[in-house]
Amino acid sequence: MFIRFLTTGGTIDKIYFDQTSQFEVGESQVNHILTEGLANIDYDVLSMFRKDSLDLTDEDRQKLKEFIENDDAERYVISHGTDTMVETAEVLAAIPGKTMVLTGALSPARFKTTDAVFNVGMAVAAVQTVNPGVYLAISGQIFEAGNVRKNRDANRFERIS
Amino acid sequence: MFIRFLTTGGTIDKIYFDQTSQFEVGESQVNHILTEGLANIDYDVLSMFRKDSLDLTDEDRQKLKEFIENDDAERYVISHGTDTMVETAEVLAAIPGKTMVLTGALSPARFKTTDAVFNVGMAVAAVQTVNPGVYLAISGQIFEAGNVRKNRDANRFERIS
Amino acid sequence: MFIRFLTTGGTIDKIYFDQTSQFEVGESQVNHILTEGLANIDYDVLSMFRKDSLDLTDEDRQKLKEFIENDDAERYVISHGTDTMVETAEVLAAIPGKTMVLTGALSPARFKTTDAVFNVGMAVAAVQTVNPGVYLAISGQIFEAGNVRKNRDANRFERIS
Amino acid sequence: MFIRFLTTGGTIDKIYFDQTSQFEVGESQVNHILTEGLANIDYDVLSMFRKDSLDLTDEDRQKLKEFIENDDAERYVISHGTDTMVETAEVLAAIPGKTMVLTGALSPARFKTTDAVFNVGMAVAAVQTVNPGVYLAISGQIFEAGNVRKNRDANRFERIS
Repeated sequence: MFIRFLTTGGTIDKIYFDQTSQFEVGESQVNHILTEGLANIDYDVLSMFRKDSLDLTDEDRQKLKEFIENDDAERYVISHGTDTMVETAEVLAAIPGKTMVLTGALSPARFKTTDAVFNVGMAVAAVQTVNPGVYLAISGQIFEAGNVRKNRDANRFERIS
Repeated sequence: MFIRFLTTGGTIDKIYFDQTSQFEVGESQVNHILTEGLANIDYDVLSMFRKDSLDLTDEDRQKLKEFIENDDAERYVISHGTDTMVETAEVLAAIPGKTMVLTGALSPARFKTTDAVFNVGMAVAAVQTVNPGVYLAISGQIFEAGNVRKNRDANRFERIS
Repeated sequence: MFIRFLTTGGTIDKIYFDQTSQFEVGESQVNHILTEGLANIDYDVLSMFRKDSLDLTDEDRQKLKEFIENDDAERYVISHGTDTMVETAEVLAAIPGKTMVLTGALSPARFKTTDAVFNVGMAVAAVQTVNPGVYLAISGQIFEAGNVRKNRDANRFERIS
Repeated sequence: MFIRFLTTGGTIDKIYFDQTSQFEVGESQVNHILTEGLANIDYDVLSMFRKDSLDLTDEDRQKLKEFIENDDAERYVISHGTDTMVETAEVLAAIPGKTMVLTGALSPARFKTTDAVFNVGMAVAAVQTVNPGVYLAISGQIFEAGNVRKNRDANRFERIS
């Protein structure tokens, strides 16, 4: 069972550059998380974007959608910033017959305390067990695209209904 | 969707006591992992045993099975040592209508580098998405009870067929 | 032997706020580092500023100097941003009879990989062993004020002569 | 200023082997700690023993003493188990003209929460700042050989007088 990881940026991959006091999207932490998780799975990781999700455009989302439509994998885990994860999920929901799980983190994977490892673990399990469709793996839950929102005040994801 | 966590011991909860140079099963790390994972779920944690899984007896497994049969929850994540996780899964497979996911770790949760957080993330996702039955969440995969073994030489879990 | 810790901000205490995608100086990590280091010492921690060291003004440095001059402790560890640590050390060098060790980090203490813990360990040892004066504890070395510079290209501190 | 690190084993380097449920002295963590601490120093690391310090014999201590006496370095950091660190320090105290700092940890360096990084930071600072002699860097303090004991009940080191 092959899993293709697509990275788009977001908090999960943020790193701090002391020389410029800048905090930017760094190299993807997915490989590191899978290695530490002793995940014995068939996979690869492709970098699509390195952006805060607030900076992702409609064009970026179309590009991501077209990439998946024309790609030969059946299962995808997509790392993504949390601010527009819900919007990207809805765009991808138009793709039939594939299983796509978006995940990310509210705290960078490079932090001592982070939700990144737990969330990627959830996404890896979900992409192997759910029916084709688009899902979010975050806040300890597996949400279906179209039935989830980010509650910014509580800093978590919730079902709409 | 309520999840009951049952802890039985194993490497995942091991701690080192310098005063005695002893390495023993300590307090369960499940609560800590769920908190760090920002898991917004309805759950509780019950401690059943604090044993290396090689020390779990047939009687212990019966006790665990009877507890779940007579308990009112529908979904369980069971933390367990890896050496006999497969055997315990087969005993629990006789329970109908409930979803049980066993998980654990090859490296203690208190270590800097550990598969524990990733594995518990997988188990939490699986217990919410799979059909009733008994599963193992480890080595980056979700295995069904009866179709999995621990490959001790490679230090990982594999499908039998 | 009493040690007073003065915190002024800098990378060592940086934290990331997902809700605003902002990276700011958070609560001091000194207490946490001393606790984890099992430091059995007589100390307290006072917060002077919460600033990037590039934002510290001449007025701030005078305020810090006057605080120490009028304070009754004899030994100080001062956490500080790295960009102007050298300048602050030179201002404090005018204070006679007290031992002051500045330290900080090139990577935040909240990161999995950070020089913060090692550097605070160095500072705690130095403040107990050196003669009165002003020192920097960073880059694996103990530098005397006036004979150290930050090499920004190499991202480390060096002796001038 | 060259520093030679000698490793002898102890809790600081303990690792857990799941395959055998054994907890043993693993590879030295000193290199890893110095790299993470961004220590820009001239050093090397030599492995003398890989033992719990309760298993170190009088012969081992003589061997260590003779090695240092006949070696050309002037400054040593010696990683050591805590149970007999005091005894080894007293044996080494007979060596004139060299600076030797023993350090170790009450919790393994591979643990998420450990005093190892802080202690090695202290030792690296002390070995550069103190006069020739033998010292212990642990419990947040720099102790002189002959005036320190391990308080096993409180799990810390203390001055005798």
